[in-house]
Amino acid sequence: MIKVTIIGNGNVASHLTDAFLKASEVSLIQIYARKLESISQLKSVTTITDSFDDILAADVYIIAVSDDAISEVSSRIPKNNGLVVHTSGSFDMHTLQCNHSKGVFYPLQSFSKDKKVNFNTIPLCLEAEYEKDMKLLEQLAFAIGKKIYRINSKQRQQLHVSAVFVNNFVNHMYKIGYDICKAYDVPFEVLQPLIAETTAKINTMAPIDAQTGPAKRNDLKTIANHLTLLNKAQQEIYNTITKSIQNG
Amino acid sequence: MIKVTIIGNGNVASHLTDAFLKASEVSLIQIYARKLESISQLKSVTTITDSFDDILAADVYIIAVSDDAISEVSSRIPKNNGLVVHTSGSFDMHTLQCNHSKGVFYPLQSFSKDKKVNFNTIPLCLEAEYEKDMKLLEQLAFAIGKKIYRINSKQRQQLHVSAVFVNNFVNHMYKIGYDICKAYDVPFEVLQPLIAETTAKINTMAPIDAQTGPAKRNDLKTIANHLTLLNKAQQEIYNTITKSIQNG
Repeated sequence: MIKVTIIGNGNVASHLTDAFLKASEVSLIQIYARKLESISQLKSVTTITDSFDDILAADVYIIAVSDDAISEVSSRIPKNNGLVVHTSGSFDMHTLQCNHSKGVFYPLQSFSKDKKVNFNTIPLCLEAEYEKDMKLLEQLAFAIGKKIYRINSKQRQQLHVSAVFVNNFVNHMYKIGYDICKAYDVPFEVLQPLIAETTAKINTMAPIDAQTGPAKRNDLKTIANHLTLLNKAQQEIYNTITKSIQNG
Repeated sequence: MIKVTIIGNGNVASHLTDAFLKASEVSLIQIYARKLESISQLKSVTTITDSFDDILAADVYIIAVSDDAISEVSSRIPKNNGLVVHTSGSFDMHTLQCNHSKGVFYPLQSFSKDKKVNFNTIPLCLEAEYEKDMKLLEQLAFAIGKKIYRINSKQRQQLHVSAVFVNNFVNHMYKIGYDICKAYDVPFEVLQPLIAETTAKINTMAPIDAQTGPAKRNDLKTIANHLTLLNKAQQEIYNTITKSIQNG
């Protein structure tokens, strides 16, 4: 049985809490939050606290707080034999300012507070200073999930910036498509099958092989025509991405 | 029974051929291609020809050729009572240079030669000069599909440029994510669940409400850090899209 303490009460913390409470090999012994009332609903299932003085001895402390607070929060965990990990995609393992062994437990997904998640489908990216700690994190990860990867800090940073492209920037492309449709009274749902197909394709093809369209074909007539249909801000994006596709 | 002739032998032509051959309310009476051998495998199921002189009288002629050839090809169809339509997303209905009634039959999907398609999931965007022709096109569309929309030439042009954003440009974001992963020996599959979630979200939320990430949060520290991880071409795209997200 792995004794786990979660520090934080945001989206990642609350989804991890749900998952660990269901995992038979994990004992979620405590949850810390700065404001006790924010986690009061959990007091029937675990110990809750708002004081670092009351932190119990655990095998793993999971710091799931905003990136900027990781360093300070980690420095306040009382010294013992436990392993301290953060859950950030962009911060180095050594952001942790504690005398404990250090690691990272990064679930790569975009969490919303109200939307249930299935950890079986979420990649859990692990890092640790020592092999024995890595083994412990793997055991903990397999207790709630299936897609477990060893990813070091440098790789994780790159993964995080990749995620901005394939998630945030992709969503912005959807937003522009939505705006254009709305302006001309075309239901956005007309584009949904194409969106699904675009995403499905890269399960079986490298994205570069899946590329189609006027930029790829160097169809200058269509590109020029498209530019006349867009506003200035949309034109800038259209030109920048078209140029990038043409450069391969 | 609607008598249909298909002109062309590209991806759209061949997927429409397959669909019409299976549709009980449609009789695919003829297929034209410039090179007869390119459609010779169809000679057992319909009439094939490479000569406009041999074109039979049909109810609907579907011109599924490259955009630049629509005008010339349409001018060569012998005059009769049939309706002539093209299948282009970006060209106006009046690109058709024939004395027939005109229309458009635009299946909004990215077709690959070898990949089977299910027309039940593909939006069919229809336009016609006259209501009776629109009715005929709707009958034809419902013979092979389920998602039928009336979309005029102006709307279709806008839809086509939207499709570039949500398909071609989204795929390019995947390509950049793939390149970054590859350079740091991270398997791209780690990002697949996030990609699936990003796409699934907009089935239930407007894209603007689904936006997350450093640009949306105005997290300047993370943005600055991300830029140090990218090459010059990637930086240009990162900056342009980040600015656009920040401008709402």
